[in-house]
Amino acid sequence: MVEDRRYLHQHPELSFEEKETAAFIADRYDKLGIPYRKNVGGYGIIGTIQGGRPGKNIALRADFDALPIQEENDVPYKSKRDGVMHACGHDGHTATLLAVAEAVLPFQDELAGTLTLIHQPAEELEPGGAKPMIEEGALDGVDAIFGTHLWATTPVHAIESSKSVFMAGADRFEITIQGRGGHGAMPHQTKDAIVMAGQAIVELQQIVSRRIDPLKPAVLTLGEVHAGSTFNVIADSARLTGTVRYLDEDVQTQVIEELHAILKGITLSYGADYELDYVKGYPPVINHVDEANYYIEDGTEIPGVQKAYEIIPVMGGEDFAYFLQERPGAYFFTGAKIEGREAYPHHHPKFDIDERALPIAAKALLHGYRKSQEK
Amino acid sequence: MVEDRRYLHQHPELSFEEKETAAFIADRYDKLGIPYRKNVGGYGIIGTIQGGRPGKNIALRADFDALPIQEENDVPYKSKRDGVMHACGHDGHTATLLAVAEAVLPFQDELAGTLTLIHQPAEELEPGGAKPMIEEGALDGVDAIFGTHLWATTPVHAIESSKSVFMAGADRFEITIQGRGGHGAMPHQTKDAIVMAGQAIVELQQIVSRRIDPLKPAVLTLGEVHAGSTFNVIADSARLTGTVRYLDEDVQTQVIEELHAILKGITLSYGADYELDYVKGYPPVINHVDEANYYIEDGTEIPGVQKAYEIIPVMGGEDFAYFLQERPGAYFFTGAKIEGREAYPHHHPKFDIDERALPIAAKALLHGYRKSQEK
Amino acid sequence: MVEDRRYLHQHPELSFEEKETAAFIADRYDKLGIPYRKNVGGYGIIGTIQGGRPGKNIALRADFDALPIQEENDVPYKSKRDGVMHACGHDGHTATLLAVAEAVLPFQDELAGTLTLIHQPAEELEPGGAKPMIEEGALDGVDAIFGTHLWATTPVHAIESSKSVFMAGADRFEITIQGRGGHGAMPHQTKDAIVMAGQAIVELQQIVSRRIDPLKPAVLTLGEVHAGSTFNVIADSARLTGTVRYLDEDVQTQVIEELHAILKGITLSYGADYELDYVKGYPPVINHVDEANYYIEDGTEIPGVQKAYEIIPVMGGEDFAYFLQERPGAYFFTGAKIEGREAYPHHHPKFDIDERALPIAAKALLHGYRKSQEK
Amino acid sequence: MVEDRRYLHQHPELSFEEKETAAFIADRYDKLGIPYRKNVGGYGIIGTIQGGRPGKNIALRADFDALPIQEENDVPYKSKRDGVMHACGHDGHTATLLAVAEAVLPFQDELAGTLTLIHQPAEELEPGGAKPMIEEGALDGVDAIFGTHLWATTPVHAIESSKSVFMAGADRFEITIQGRGGHGAMPHQTKDAIVMAGQAIVELQQIVSRRIDPLKPAVLTLGEVHAGSTFNVIADSARLTGTVRYLDEDVQTQVIEELHAILKGITLSYGADYELDYVKGYPPVINHVDEANYYIEDGTEIPGVQKAYEIIPVMGGEDFAYFLQERPGAYFFTGAKIEGREAYPHHHPKFDIDERALPIAAKALLHGYRKSQEK
Repeated sequence: MVEDRRYLHQHPELSFEEKETAAFIADRYDKLGIPYRKNVGGYGIIGTIQGGRPGKNIALRADFDALPIQEENDVPYKSKRDGVMHACGHDGHTATLLAVAEAVLPFQDELAGTLTLIHQPAEELEPGGAKPMIEEGALDGVDAIFGTHLWATTPVHAIESSKSVFMAGADRFEITIQGRGGHGAMPHQTKDAIVMAGQAIVELQQIVSRRIDPLKPAVLTLGEVHAGSTFNVIADSARLTGTVRYLDEDVQTQVIEELHAILKGITLSYGADYELDYVKGYPPVINHVDEANYYIEDGTEIPGVQKAYEIIPVMGGEDFAYFLQERPGAYFFTGAKIEGREAYPHHHPKFDIDERALPIAAKALLHGYRKSQEK
Repeated sequence: MVEDRRYLHQHPELSFEEKETAAFIADRYDKLGIPYRKNVGGYGIIGTIQGGRPGKNIALRADFDALPIQEENDVPYKSKRDGVMHACGHDGHTATLLAVAEAVLPFQDELAGTLTLIHQPAEELEPGGAKPMIEEGALDGVDAIFGTHLWATTPVHAIESSKSVFMAGADRFEITIQGRGGHGAMPHQTKDAIVMAGQAIVELQQIVSRRIDPLKPAVLTLGEVHAGSTFNVIADSARLTGTVRYLDEDVQTQVIEELHAILKGITLSYGADYELDYVKGYPPVINHVDEANYYIEDGTEIPGVQKAYEIIPVMGGEDFAYFLQERPGAYFFTGAKIEGREAYPHHHPKFDIDERALPIAAKALLHGYRKSQEK
Repeated sequence: MVEDRRYLHQHPELSFEEKETAAFIADRYDKLGIPYRKNVGGYGIIGTIQGGRPGKNIALRADFDALPIQEENDVPYKSKRDGVMHACGHDGHTATLLAVAEAVLPFQDELAGTLTLIHQPAEELEPGGAKPMIEEGALDGVDAIFGTHLWATTPVHAIESSKSVFMAGADRFEITIQGRGGHGAMPHQTKDAIVMAGQAIVELQQIVSRRIDPLKPAVLTLGEVHAGSTFNVIADSARLTGTVRYLDEDVQTQVIEELHAILKGITLSYGADYELDYVKGYPPVINHVDEANYYIEDGTEIPGVQKAYEIIPVMGGEDFAYFLQERPGAYFFTGAKIEGREAYPHHHPKFDIDERALPIAAKALLHGYRKSQEK
Repeated sequence: MVEDRRYLHQHPELSFEEKETAAFIADRYDKLGIPYRKNVGGYGIIGTIQGGRPGKNIALRADFDALPIQEENDVPYKSKRDGVMHACGHDGHTATLLAVAEAVLPFQDELAGTLTLIHQPAEELEPGGAKPMIEEGALDGVDAIFGTHLWATTPVHAIESSKSVFMAGADRFEITIQGRGGHGAMPHQTKDAIVMAGQAIVELQQIVSRRIDPLKPAVLTLGEVHAGSTFNVIADSARLTGTVRYLDEDVQTQVIEELHAILKGITLSYGADYELDYVKGYPPVINHVDEANYYIEDGTEIPGVQKAYEIIPVMGGEDFAYFLQERPGAYFFTGAKIEGREAYPHHHPKFDIDERALPIAAKALLHGYRKSQEK
């Protein structure tokens, strides 16, 4: 399992470009002799282990795309691709699900029900891989679904989940500020797009601090700002991209309005223009209470799990949300914090996980499978 | 002359990379049989026309590099290189000086003194081409030097200069703000480099508006800001580049101090770090009064010139400054505004010149040569 | 009850200056023959109605101070004091509690237990009136306590409360930025306190938007900024006051740290100084579950109440918090929205209430009394 | 002279309220037997000393109002009025002109021409005292006029002036930002005027730094910002006042446009409103070349003057400008820097002058008178 994870870590692929990762998974199923569909909703792969006894069809899902981040860890299994990195643990998710398949296979005859193994691409980039996989039948015949995220800030041996809203809705936007460039020494003949961008970065902070109900959690992050091509030419335009997270749909609506209001105000004062391309992304991840309780109430039944508890919602988005809109199920975190070093957050160039979490995650996924059969 | 200019316009080369442009110039001198040195201080070329009569050695200088700008003019002679453009008229300068050489050559025997033709690369990018050319002897034996800039906002038939400070000192700086990146939904676990960059862009405006003596002209422009690689990851660092223009050395000193003070304050409040790489660039262009008066007092003696006058200093920098630190001389503008369309400023993607200015510029340069012989 | 409320509305008094309001209440108790203590912890008044039958001692509390706001309502009962206004409904609270006293009095003999009527001054201004009243024995012998707030944005006939955290912790702070003043035309010889204040106002928005966990509600409001005494003199110093609201003590700690960090950064960049006087104020109002359920589960038993439900916590602070730290009890809102006009928020110059809410509030307070006797 | 200056320093009066100062001056002329008009254009006083010999009528002018500043000097002659201070040296100007009158009087018979002594009120506050004095005939019969400013940052024994633009145009403006107030804990229900004011303070810095030609000096200073009445109520409105200084009328026009553009942008983004009351004030002080040369070329002829020279224009405004629009004349600075302590700028609470400058200023004013008679 560790070997798989490290191999994948060294060979990360960006969302919607995970051709080799998909081939790696398919190759494994070929070797194991597990039947699978490939190219489901993109590079998605769905393996099936048909148990020898009757029972429910339960799906387990793992995502397998990576991020456009340059790894800064100094480890033997460091990413071999410049600017691409498994900085969110999807390498571990994939290794875990492959290990589940391999572990269950010898007991196929005794197995009750059907185990559906969903390997999903493109979780990191809207519109994501979950939706097209569902559209191409990923949940056909499935009774319930479970998924986990290895969580770098939660200690190993702990499981976290929620009985209701577990993860935030996540949107993406791109702002273009169109000014008028010119000679760096003659600002008065221009409409300086960089000054407008700076103004926007600062003023957009007021949406969360002043304009949204303080009791309704919201995040507005600008992830990129790019303007200008040289130091002594005033930039014609600036491009900013960002993400919005919310638990409540009203907040989403209001953020869009406020983005327009602020950008309109700033560009008006310069006689300039803006465009806002706002793409509504994954909805909030809302767990189903019975399935969530397999992890919250009964989580310590899982071998290796010492603590299992409910947490308040997390602001990160997840397209597992779509699966939970269609079927009962639950999403949970498997603690993977490395002791004795700083816990770098997800999407950080120094993100890493404690690999002892991998077998726990595998057992936890199977736990959902088993509990569902008993229900 | 127009043909040369258009050819050069279609084949622009960035500063310090002007190999083909230098070859074009050398090839012309080869054809004309004018002796020249090449690779002087980089790709610099110096032609010499030794007159048949005694006199002074007078240098005329033209620069020949282009800018990293994507041309937006829809003209038959549009730049053929993506992202590179003669957006500052150096194509015209070069064509003008070549035309001077060609025009003078038939009268070489009657010519008093020596005509030194300085083709200078890399004016647009510090440390520039003038300094290394001087270091490699470009001014050896030279008594005085003249240069002109085709000026897109001054009407054709006009000449502008100054008897003292004519163009500003021009510096370049690069700021790196080092925060701590992370997941776009968890800003509180990060030190958001983009927010700090926005803060810096806005707060740096106070240097000119509040901290510099309002009677001492100064410009601080940020030409580039680049941070982040994707919309949902908080950026670890931000890079900003810019230019400072000044007429008075005290201002230069103070701007550097204030840049540090502001960046220190912003990053301190986040527990983050910054680096400031400040590169002192070209000093102010300071004309010599006698030589300047050839253009201000006597400028209308030049064929095609209807108006000649002194203007207040221009904020743009020029490494012609170095030549004037070593020898008497003057720098002047030759009007090249295109009537009937908006006059796009220098360094704008739609910058262009009225080509009727080219022969006037040529005659104006020769005028400096002649006046110097009479002195 | 309406008459009392309107009289009080016309004669508002600021926190800690409510001499006449206290005299008005005392006078009423004198007339009714209800025994009372006065000057309890300031202008506090505690009336006591000893029932004829055994039972618990239950306190009901109403606050009676007003705000430094200029009323903008055009009503016959408009405030007669310039710049002082009952813009938070405390006039109604007082009228309600007096009505409770008057209503209960005729039935004193049949009454089980003791009714303690707490009229509290200075709720609007830390350190508040609750704490000194408690220190001077206001809760001696009291078994439980209830209080209500007339709520201008909740419809009449509705009751709102919470089983746990109901209202936020509320702190107060004052910032002084010490620059160096001077002539308005010579900014470079000064350290402009107003520019630093503007910077602070803008940058402090980042505390909530970027530095606090987005899942932990927080508000940082600047209520006042005052700097400068004339238009053409650069201000030496600026004074800003504000409030912080939080539900979680960690947030309080972090906000204080971030305030210092940001102010240090801004003033450092100017070589200026700041002082931050941060006064920890009322802690969060935390209801006791049994007593809260008298209003949430059983609220519709109250005559006139059609809807009763739990709401998420409210960011406004209340020194009723101190009573609930000492005794079981609950705080709840009584809907008082005026239909057919815009619902101006509390502390707004056009704040007003629907007086039909007054008898409902009175009955709701008595409901807590009765339920407690049954417990 | 020193005694007069110190008496006036202790009894400062604000612009347009200088009743007692005017009475003090009138009383002195009464005692000296010098005829005078009083209440000219307000509290203005014009004394006349008719010489015994023919000649020109030359006016000397001194202003006598003080500023709304709390003195922070610890001197025996400290201001006795709270919040009012001669922080600009007008006490010295008045003492100087009275001393001129007293010195000339014994020689009245030998005097050529007429000495007009103009004591002008209200220089510090538009519309100023100069204009109404002129409208009421202050310059009737006057051939030329001179005035001086004691200058706290120029050494004693030095005289400074300019042959053309000497002091800037000075305007005044008041901004009202109208938001919507409310409870400090519910920002999302309000339009926070303080946040908008902070935004405005910061963004207005871009007018000078980005929007005005960097070669055209300009200052935009906000001298006051006042908003809110208590720490926990969000302010309905904010009031900001400020001054604009310019040497070129185009800059004045553009600043007004840019103020509107920026305020419109900010308030638009909040759905709020603003008002801008822009009052054009004193135009630039433009000296006449011949009269200026009495001080620049011939200044060292004045007893006590060791250095006399031309300086670049000063950004401070002066309504002496109006006199120079009507008559030839010159305005100049008389050095009054106190050696051995920090030179606090004009309008600073610790502003003070070296009183040895007073007799020099008196002789310098008379020098203008004499030179004009010789012309």
